[in-house]
Amino acid sequence: MTVSALQEDVLAANLARPAYGLVTLTWGNASGIDRERGVVAIKPSGVAYPDLRAEDIVVLDLDGRPVGGGGRPSTDTPTHLALYRAFPEIGGIVHTHSTWATAWAQAGREIPVLGTTHADLCDGPIPLTRPLTRAQIDADYEGETATVLIEALAERGPEAVPCALVQGHAPFCWGASPAAAVANAVTLEEVARMALLTTLLRSDSPPLPDFLRQKHYLRKHGPGAYYGQK
Amino acid sequence: MTVSALQEDVLAANLARPAYGLVTLTWGNASGIDRERGVVAIKPSGVAYPDLRAEDIVVLDLDGRPVGGGGRPSTDTPTHLALYRAFPEIGGIVHTHSTWATAWAQAGREIPVLGTTHADLCDGPIPLTRPLTRAQIDADYEGETATVLIEALAERGPEAVPCALVQGHAPFCWGASPAAAVANAVTLEEVARMALLTTLLRSDSPPLPDFLRQKHYLRKHGPGAYYGQK
Amino acid sequence: MTVSALQEDVLAANLARPAYGLVTLTWGNASGIDRERGVVAIKPSGVAYPDLRAEDIVVLDLDGRPVGGGGRPSTDTPTHLALYRAFPEIGGIVHTHSTWATAWAQAGREIPVLGTTHADLCDGPIPLTRPLTRAQIDADYEGETATVLIEALAERGPEAVPCALVQGHAPFCWGASPAAAVANAVTLEEVARMALLTTLLRSDSPPLPDFLRQKHYLRKHGPGAYYGQK
Amino acid sequence: MTVSALQEDVLAANLARPAYGLVTLTWGNASGIDRERGVVAIKPSGVAYPDLRAEDIVVLDLDGRPVGGGGRPSTDTPTHLALYRAFPEIGGIVHTHSTWATAWAQAGREIPVLGTTHADLCDGPIPLTRPLTRAQIDADYEGETATVLIEALAERGPEAVPCALVQGHAPFCWGASPAAAVANAVTLEEVARMALLTTLLRSDSPPLPDFLRQKHYLRKHGPGAYYGQK
Repeated sequence: MTVSALQEDVLAANLARPAYGLVTLTWGNASGIDRERGVVAIKPSGVAYPDLRAEDIVVLDLDGRPVGGGGRPSTDTPTHLALYRAFPEIGGIVHTHSTWATAWAQAGREIPVLGTTHADLCDGPIPLTRPLTRAQIDADYEGETATVLIEALAERGPEAVPCALVQGHAPFCWGASPAAAVANAVTLEEVARMALLTTLLRSDSPPLPDFLRQKHYLRKHGPGAYYGQK
Repeated sequence: MTVSALQEDVLAANLARPAYGLVTLTWGNASGIDRERGVVAIKPSGVAYPDLRAEDIVVLDLDGRPVGGGGRPSTDTPTHLALYRAFPEIGGIVHTHSTWATAWAQAGREIPVLGTTHADLCDGPIPLTRPLTRAQIDADYEGETATVLIEALAERGPEAVPCALVQGHAPFCWGASPAAAVANAVTLEEVARMALLTTLLRSDSPPLPDFLRQKHYLRKHGPGAYYGQK
Repeated sequence: MTVSALQEDVLAANLARPAYGLVTLTWGNASGIDRERGVVAIKPSGVAYPDLRAEDIVVLDLDGRPVGGGGRPSTDTPTHLALYRAFPEIGGIVHTHSTWATAWAQAGREIPVLGTTHADLCDGPIPLTRPLTRAQIDADYEGETATVLIEALAERGPEAVPCALVQGHAPFCWGASPAAAVANAVTLEEVARMALLTTLLRSDSPPLPDFLRQKHYLRKHGPGAYYGQK
Repeated sequence: MTVSALQEDVLAANLARPAYGLVTLTWGNASGIDRERGVVAIKPSGVAYPDLRAEDIVVLDLDGRPVGGGGRPSTDTPTHLALYRAFPEIGGIVHTHSTWATAWAQAGREIPVLGTTHADLCDGPIPLTRPLTRAQIDADYEGETATVLIEALAERGPEAVPCALVQGHAPFCWGASPAAAVANAVTLEEVARMALLTTLLRSDSPPLPDFLRQKHYLRKHGPGAYYGQK
């Protein structure tokens, strides 16, 4: 099998994560989907980043049956597949244990909108999943992780909410492409860091007023967005 | 149009910001002005730093009419233009979302003068703008951001106060040139970090005594300054 | 004497520590053991990392008698030797003064299991040794440091607990090989950092529920582990 | 005048400070003394590190009269000269505004001995100078900075205490050579960072017991020291 453009994109997304300081060792994983061919490409499990090549990126169908790439896929593959099945608008998913976002996940707190950097990413708090029950963990841990993520997105959807914190675990981020998911992961980590430092300066910082939050979000993401090149 | 020295200076100021760790992805923007020609050069909106070339730097007149450079200017261009119109002594402006300074902006606190590193930059607290009203945001968000910055500088002026925090947003910094504005942005971030850490060690740290604050400021910036080469 | 593979492995483990930001200057030390030959290789004392070569790695028998390598071994050699004598399952040991783990050691607190990153490393808190007594310090400081480490591991053993904090001092980490010990040291530092930041967000964060902690540990380390390539 | 070995050593000490992350832009300064020739070499004022060459290092006699090197010496030169005059055992001095040590100086707190990393550097707290009076600042600011440093060292001396915090300002460090002063500055910053993080985990952490503090200090610095190569 020749290396596909999808594998190249997913390799680039995986390598961008240590380059941005979001992961170390073999942690985390990034994937992408080719909706036309119905295949998902994802990092192999437990491979160190310097050793990763495009042909190592595992290719699966949406039910997890291997289509290409030699290795065993990431242990978190069922989470990725369930998110792709639930949300046709998602083209790439990134999972990290990035330090500051993980601190919020471990503290069991959603991240409030304390500034415009956050509003540039997301029009509301970064949601926190409910805890997994023992039954969910025993039955299908990785699949049920997607279940609680999907619940957390139910109201606002994956375009308005480009990432969420799995309680006690770490963030998952997504976007229209693997590269867009990486950019959301980079932004989330910075937003998490700023929010934690803000909390140290003032434990009761009020969230941004609605009109400022929406202004920032919409100038970047709304129908009349004027950020970026046309 | 050939690439001007102004575009080269503004490119260098833009690239210095990620090099100093002040921004990531496409965030923030730097600009410069040629007062003789009456033109401002500024970063194009949403372009990633590794892709930025001098010919991409957008050139505008002081009312925002395009004079050169192919792209769409930064969304924050109206803020820069209004500051240049208000303060003839400013030659360069830098806007970042640098982490520690942004934490103070998000907490809604001006940065007190807790040590001589701060006094080397500025003879007083780093001011915080008042919040923008809903009417200001709806009417002309970026222009009104300049309005509250100009208000915050009214008393002390942009030479004594080389930067300010836009409440809930992030810092703007300025100087005699784009390079001077970058140096002020680097210093502000370090001052913000030291001040936050100081606050963690002692929540009621008193500000530096006036005579020490003024001594440090004046040995670097006063009429009898003796810092640097002649 | 020719340079052995053991010396090469121990050199690599020593150099990985500054590369991962775990040590600076000449701090810390890494060692490995060749159980067949009964020899331990360890960093020489007080040598700066850029100057370290494989032939400088000191080789000793398990009682500390020199077998090869020209210099004086690390001052912490008696700690390493006693751990190798006590635990035949250990193949490599790494000692750092990594910042965040050391903060927990200095605060005299074990690190609770606040998230799955921790559970991927260790099925329980990172233990803290009891303080050394004055008599222990006067008699054999480095040897008695191993004594309190061995006590801290008595119940769960060095495979379930890949690292521990020496109270008032810093962490020691181990593994099946020098490289595995380095990976544990990298993970410990990140776990310590996440745990401290979590504590700042919520001082009473409850530990991960047992079933989630065990699920994560066992999917990576248990008999039915499914993390990594086969 | 040819470039002396002293100028080369002082250049190396100056360049090591940004390399270790202790300073940015043109901040701080390092110097060295040739006791036989009675000359001090020091960084020129306000020169950026990438531009600094050995021939730029300014050479002065102990009263501050220029002996060589073209530029204006660091504004803090009178502090360095007074320390060299007071303490014949000092061969190099380094001044930084390193972040974490400066936070302690700004909070007006000496750094307590919370762990062995500190005890490896210094057999007691890192002292804090008393505040300078207005009269001292008006008369001879930089010279009087040395006065309060010398007072802070009066009891224990500059060999037992390799650095001190100038209140509201930042650390000064020294050693037998410029390189030794740099190593002390690197260690101080790490000690300051660990101590601040320890304080966040436990605000009332007790200092290390005397016997452990002394054991660590003496195994590295005492008459029977056994750290390092012979």
